[in-house]
Amino acid sequence: MNTNSTKNLPYYMALFIIELGDDLDNFEEMSLKMNELVSQQSGYLGGEDMETTDGRIISICYWENLDSIKDWRGNLEHQIAIKLGKEKWFKSYQIQISKVEYILGI
Amino acid sequence: MNTNSTKNLPYYMALFIIELGDDLDNFEEMSLKMNELVSQQSGYLGGEDMETTDGRIISICYWENLDSIKDWRGNLEHQIAIKLGKEKWFKSYQIQISKVEYILGI
Repeated sequence: MNTNSTKNLPYYMALFIIELGDDLDNFEEMSLKMNELVSQQSGYLGGEDMETTDGRIISICYWENLDSIKDWRGNLEHQIAIKLGKEKWFKSYQIQISKVEYILGI
Repeated sequence: MNTNSTKNLPYYMALFIIELGDDLDNFEEMSLKMNELVSQQSGYLGGEDMETTDGRIISICYWENLDSIKDWRGNLEHQIAIKLGKEKWFKSYQIQISKVEYILGI
């Protein structure tokens, strides 16, 4: 789902900025698995993964409300992925959870 | 200023996702000028520009509150830059204004 899709305001956004480490063994498989799993979550409105030219991963997920995000954070397979990320794949990461109040664009 | 800088919650985020067109004449100069101007705005808490591997620009600006964002949107030089962007440089753009309620990270 594209970031330009129509979503009713307000909605929630989880913005990940991930700096990857050197050992990326199984990272891509896990990312694909998480993208598949998250798409089945109630309240999930879509999202997008981007890579920056300096090698970071920007991942944006849109949600109907905070409860949907909490449910997803409670998902056991997701928790394992986050744990592996922190221990193995991520040199640093930051997640900002925000409530989107306005959209402008063309 | 880096996205990892300490900011007191809640704060506001303006997330731009810009798909550039082919004519980028003067775009970089204007970007630099806007970065300099915005850094002088009251309520501005920093930001970061990133380029994605598929050629989009992701620009994140952090703000103390909505009023600071409104003031910046009212800035005449900024309005001219946005107008030029829409008419000339941007194939598409989206700005999402959101209130950051939680941060997680390492």
